[in-house]
Amino acid sequence: MHAPTLIAKKRDGEVLTGDEFNWFIEHLTQLPREQIGAFLMACQLNGLNDDETTALTRAMLNQGARLAPRTNAVDKHSTGGVGDKMSLILAPALHACGAVVPMLAGRGLAHTGGTIDKLEAIPGFNTGLSLGEMNSNPCFISRQTADIAPADAVLYAIRDVTATVPCIGLITASILSKKAAEGIQALVLDVKFGRAAFMQEVTEARALAKSMVRVGHELGMNVTAQLTDMNRPLGRYLGNSHEIVETIACLKGRGPADTMELVYAQAMALGYDITESISDGSALASFRSMLTRQGVQERVVDELVNDPWNVLAQESTP
Amino acid sequence: MHAPTLIAKKRDGEVLTGDEFNWFIEHLTQLPREQIGAFLMACQLNGLNDDETTALTRAMLNQGARLAPRTNAVDKHSTGGVGDKMSLILAPALHACGAVVPMLAGRGLAHTGGTIDKLEAIPGFNTGLSLGEMNSNPCFISRQTADIAPADAVLYAIRDVTATVPCIGLITASILSKKAAEGIQALVLDVKFGRAAFMQEVTEARALAKSMVRVGHELGMNVTAQLTDMNRPLGRYLGNSHEIVETIACLKGRGPADTMELVYAQAMALGYDITESISDGSALASFRSMLTRQGVQERVVDELVNDPWNVLAQESTP
Repeated sequence: MHAPTLIAKKRDGEVLTGDEFNWFIEHLTQLPREQIGAFLMACQLNGLNDDETTALTRAMLNQGARLAPRTNAVDKHSTGGVGDKMSLILAPALHACGAVVPMLAGRGLAHTGGTIDKLEAIPGFNTGLSLGEMNSNPCFISRQTADIAPADAVLYAIRDVTATVPCIGLITASILSKKAAEGIQALVLDVKFGRAAFMQEVTEARALAKSMVRVGHELGMNVTAQLTDMNRPLGRYLGNSHEIVETIACLKGRGPADTMELVYAQAMALGYDITESISDGSALASFRSMLTRQGVQERVVDELVNDPWNVLAQESTP
Repeated sequence: MHAPTLIAKKRDGEVLTGDEFNWFIEHLTQLPREQIGAFLMACQLNGLNDDETTALTRAMLNQGARLAPRTNAVDKHSTGGVGDKMSLILAPALHACGAVVPMLAGRGLAHTGGTIDKLEAIPGFNTGLSLGEMNSNPCFISRQTADIAPADAVLYAIRDVTATVPCIGLITASILSKKAAEGIQALVLDVKFGRAAFMQEVTEARALAKSMVRVGHELGMNVTAQLTDMNRPLGRYLGNSHEIVETIACLKGRGPADTMELVYAQAMALGYDITESISDGSALASFRSMLTRQGVQERVVDELVNDPWNVLAQESTP
């Protein structure tokens, strides 16, 4: 195979094969970066169909490490919006209801915050678990390791500077190659649209949702997608530390209605009713044990739950 | 200005300004190559209009060195085809008729031969004149210096490996930025199409001709274009040495009809009737003095004109 031929095919709107995507991903780090940029722009402008997106996702997934598949393993993914702290509430609540939650999360994108950034506001919280630690942990939120879908980091860094972030096929492959590596059986997608979200148009959000559901099913995951309007930030608090404070309020049953409504709906899409886990305190207990397993000292966990501002303020930098 | 924003504008089909093209060319060697690749693919797929092509050409021209403008300075450019040795005949014939011919030529592209490659079959011929040598030489064929339209070499090397060679706007800017640097008043373009040419379709060739005529006029050159069908190679000889032999036959008035017809038509488009210069030997004399000025020894010139195979065979490598 020959990179200029592959690029020319995509330039001319032809459909690439699984072998071609495998070759591209295998050779990614050896290709001159101008070829990667040109290829991504051809994908952006001519699009990738479902078969191509599935082939690219599979190529990215198969190149890297994977977690062991586990029964009742579920996850959620949000395309990101301002004030979106759902994952922080949902993961422990699902675990309190018996689910395994191996959640690989990311950092902020453009003006939207990232789950990992928010967790790093908690003193001592380890966002970089090893593959072994992940496999033995029933509920975690971690950055991905460098060996899970390694092509994604390379592609993402290039997409970010070449105006090729909005391509539906590339977004789908980026998200699902990592989610499929978690060994999960079901995934709920929260595809946000509107002024405070990454995707500003509902038509784009719908196309992305459809693409992720179809490609997810091809990869053996039961994927459901919810489109949520995000013209206003979610909840009452914004910013990393502030959103940790609001998460704890939510887990104590004192969350704002808009936030809790979404969390309940996302859990329901995965087959779990988490209402009781919030009211009986088991979701909060699960949050506490998640923090402990990820390196936060018991004393800090106690203080965080009782007087979060005190703990978080000490560590925040102006 | 910011490269991703520029790329996004072109991705979205917007028209870029002169300032934007100036910025792009000024920063070309500092830009990450993935950005150049993505930008070129966006140009390839969304096209450049005449204003954008003129702006890009001007940016490339103005960044580099230029020859001094000279009265009666003319040139021709061919988009290249198999067996196309027109330039080798035309340049000395035009000079014999009183024109100044500062011809910057290139190497072969894909399966088509390059004028420079052909001239290098002549022992001692210097294809790399300095700017000073060019300015004092009334008729030469040389490679461009590194300081004439320097962005072109960078862009060309990237286009070559990113499937972005066929973009009409980029081809126009590449050719005309160098031609405008020659300080010429008139240019005839031989846009070839067909199986033995670089452009295979007549519609592409016509679009390229129109683009080059319009942009050339904007840059103050009187540009005329001829579309020539090239489904068969031109003349009877192919290959670098062989085409030098055929060039000498043509200058002696023993050229094949197809070749001479084109040479006469190209000269006519520049306002020169070269028929007599061929029949009275003045075109051949002009060819001899061009060779001498570009470093070929008198003895080699004599032998080349009298017994070309003998000279060329000595130097050819299998």
